[in-house]
Amino acid sequence: MSKDKQFVKEITPQAEDFSRWYIDVIKKADLMDYSPVRGCIVFKPDGYELWELCQRELDARFKETGHRNAYFPLFIPESFFQKEKEHVEGFNPELPWVTEAAGEQLEERLAIRPTSETMIGHMYAKWIQSYRDLPVLINQWANVVRWEKRTLPFLRTSEFLWQEGHTAHETEEEARKETLQMLEIYRDFVENFLAIPVIVGQKTPSEKFAGAKDTYSIEAMMKDGRAVQAGTSHYMGTNFAEAFDIKYLDRDNQLQHAFTTSWGVSTRLIGALIMVHGDDRGLNLPPKVAPTQVVMIPIGPAKTRDQVVARTDELFAELKQAGIRVKVDDRSDQSPGWKFNEYEMRGVPVRLELGPRDMEKGQCVLVSRVTGEKRMVQQDQLVEEVQKLLDETQQELYERAKQFMADRFRSVDELDELKAAMEEERGFFLAGWCGSASCEHQVKEEAGATSRNIPFEVTEHKSKCLVCGENAQHTVVFAKAY
Amino acid sequence: MSKDKQFVKEITPQAEDFSRWYIDVIKKADLMDYSPVRGCIVFKPDGYELWELCQRELDARFKETGHRNAYFPLFIPESFFQKEKEHVEGFNPELPWVTEAAGEQLEERLAIRPTSETMIGHMYAKWIQSYRDLPVLINQWANVVRWEKRTLPFLRTSEFLWQEGHTAHETEEEARKETLQMLEIYRDFVENFLAIPVIVGQKTPSEKFAGAKDTYSIEAMMKDGRAVQAGTSHYMGTNFAEAFDIKYLDRDNQLQHAFTTSWGVSTRLIGALIMVHGDDRGLNLPPKVAPTQVVMIPIGPAKTRDQVVARTDELFAELKQAGIRVKVDDRSDQSPGWKFNEYEMRGVPVRLELGPRDMEKGQCVLVSRVTGEKRMVQQDQLVEEVQKLLDETQQELYERAKQFMADRFRSVDELDELKAAMEEERGFFLAGWCGSASCEHQVKEEAGATSRNIPFEVTEHKSKCLVCGENAQHTVVFAKAY
Repeated sequence: MSKDKQFVKEITPQAEDFSRWYIDVIKKADLMDYSPVRGCIVFKPDGYELWELCQRELDARFKETGHRNAYFPLFIPESFFQKEKEHVEGFNPELPWVTEAAGEQLEERLAIRPTSETMIGHMYAKWIQSYRDLPVLINQWANVVRWEKRTLPFLRTSEFLWQEGHTAHETEEEARKETLQMLEIYRDFVENFLAIPVIVGQKTPSEKFAGAKDTYSIEAMMKDGRAVQAGTSHYMGTNFAEAFDIKYLDRDNQLQHAFTTSWGVSTRLIGALIMVHGDDRGLNLPPKVAPTQVVMIPIGPAKTRDQVVARTDELFAELKQAGIRVKVDDRSDQSPGWKFNEYEMRGVPVRLELGPRDMEKGQCVLVSRVTGEKRMVQQDQLVEEVQKLLDETQQELYERAKQFMADRFRSVDELDELKAAMEEERGFFLAGWCGSASCEHQVKEEAGATSRNIPFEVTEHKSKCLVCGENAQHTVVFAKAY
Repeated sequence: MSKDKQFVKEITPQAEDFSRWYIDVIKKADLMDYSPVRGCIVFKPDGYELWELCQRELDARFKETGHRNAYFPLFIPESFFQKEKEHVEGFNPELPWVTEAAGEQLEERLAIRPTSETMIGHMYAKWIQSYRDLPVLINQWANVVRWEKRTLPFLRTSEFLWQEGHTAHETEEEARKETLQMLEIYRDFVENFLAIPVIVGQKTPSEKFAGAKDTYSIEAMMKDGRAVQAGTSHYMGTNFAEAFDIKYLDRDNQLQHAFTTSWGVSTRLIGALIMVHGDDRGLNLPPKVAPTQVVMIPIGPAKTRDQVVARTDELFAELKQAGIRVKVDDRSDQSPGWKFNEYEMRGVPVRLELGPRDMEKGQCVLVSRVTGEKRMVQQDQLVEEVQKLLDETQQELYERAKQFMADRFRSVDELDELKAAMEEERGFFLAGWCGSASCEHQVKEEAGATSRNIPFEVTEHKSKCLVCGENAQHTVVFAKAY
């Protein structure tokens, strides 16, 4: 057992200290470790595998919708950032700079990419000449760096892993359609693969991506009532096309600027996954993203051990053959009870127990991590029964998270009401907003809540701004965010 | 058509200028583009997809042998490089440095990783306490940077993509076994997946990895007779364990240093793939790594077009269903002849032609990219026939490359002979070597050839050093390398 693990004896209860609970869980479940570089973490195999499963799923969805992967340089010349005014203002404060290489000072400083719109804009300008070259539909899996002051493993780290899609189109209509298509892919992925319900909507101008015309997001609620922005999709209009000179000859032989989009999700999804589903016993992984979906634990006295293990291995082979991610723990130096706790802590959705009496009866026991329910099932129906319990578990986790979010989703009319509600219990607060940046700013200053987004669908349209009382232009979700 | 493509009208013949041939092919086949950052390229979708297919195949092989993926920080504190003397000397001249971030000077400069032994060594020291923690078998897919003076797309770029495996073991024997196991995985992958024959052997001390005890490599021969180091595997002994304090309590409760290894292949494999198989018509991809294995081209007059295209689509569905990577080009604004040339240039292994007369007879034509052979096959045996031709093509490319290497693999006794041979025609030269660095250096200075490796298997053991004439300690392969 490593030094690190020895320090994490128990998991702090969520109700006692949610932040400590989070750190305890990710350390004890061996998902990450701190690195010697400020704000950068090491993704350990159990943490990285969650990302690999997300990648595989998202990559298939991107390719189904006609996107292809490419890879652009890590370094971005300083001059590139100057080309789009909002973009440089937004990212400049967070950039690390390479100033020397191979023993010499560089003539121009190179930033480590915080995102690749500028580099990709430069390349697209070379590649796009005619409407025949459009659309360009490219995605990149990469590391990016934003020098963060306050960091939190997975949720906010100086270096993180993500994908960034960058597309260019002939018309505004097509680019807007792409922007919303990718937002919908994110929503579907996050809700149906990660079992995390989200609020889908548009960001207010002050919260949009630096350089975008419109930014859309999906917002998830953590178990402490705080929000995590789980994915964003940006419609850039011709902002980057103008800055980087991405022009094409249209069908009437006229030079036009292309319309571009970008969209991304990152390893912060791992943080959200933990904070949405985890409980005082540890991780709680939805089956679709669980590296191990079923752990099989042979039990019973030493004299029947070999028989039970042999039968366990046979059932293991059946489950594996059926495409289920399954693992056997037949170590004899740990008790079944220790193993039950261990795999519950690691969030394995289903535990299978097999003892000598079960063997005689051709049965085994399935235990659900999320409900604790035990099911005696026939071994000859094992694959179907396991698949059924996995499907139910996926659904159950989603429903629980949805109920949790519904319970903490409230409507408020005035700023004082929001302030009082935020102090009582954090959550998402629906309120009217006049559209002015100053009112939005006041909410942040006084209630500690930012506008998350303007939801596409609301149960209630608010008529007055919660700050100034003027007519509301929008109904907005406010929350404290990670 | 993009500006870039317009500039590449024709491919320079290999015999006229191999370097120009290479650049013409990778540009015309749209695999990459130069970036505005010195020495960094953009991997365009057709180039990146070759890497994705390599990744998928290698990743499966790593996981089958018990390795798991993780991710470590991009940045490495300067002090880490000072801990292993040879390592810092080897890599210091190529490092780019981050000196400022978020508007402030850093207290300690951060290198962009050229390889991760130091960072990983630091982390392993935290993770490994007991023999029970061993072995640690971790791989990382990542970008790395080495500030190169002379660059060549794919083969030598300042930033490149690779995988680096890092393992730690209880005993020297186990670590040495791991080192050679991974070398064998590389050999098998490169020979049987990329169809590139290689020379497997050990590097001389002057050519080994900075900090390794022993380095092993696989060396491939390009069509200009130059060598590409296609993969390396390093046995570190306890060098890094001593530098980073990776110690464990052994079975007798004694503190011991762990034995470590590292091994990697990179996107330079893409360059080798092109230079080994390509010809004057362009790329020539082995089916296993070809993003498109079969291109289907409907032919014939306009009046039968709809029928032929409909039948092509049916056959497409059959091939796709069988797991073959297939594509239809039914564009009517390009002639069949233009398409034939285009897909030959892009290296698609098999072309399928279907015309109205073929339809009547229930036949179609398969054309092999590598041999030019045309086969009339029955449509009802299409999947088997295509699979057969793909298998034959894979084998044929390997055999041709093997024959090419055999023809340019010669034995020499003296330095003058090597010099003359190198001037006449480049290739691999087997020679005796006394083991002294000065003789090896003289070969480099006078013949422009470096020792590639000491092959595990040689047809002939040389008895005298080619430079000093003393007894040979080793029989070495010399060549000019990329």
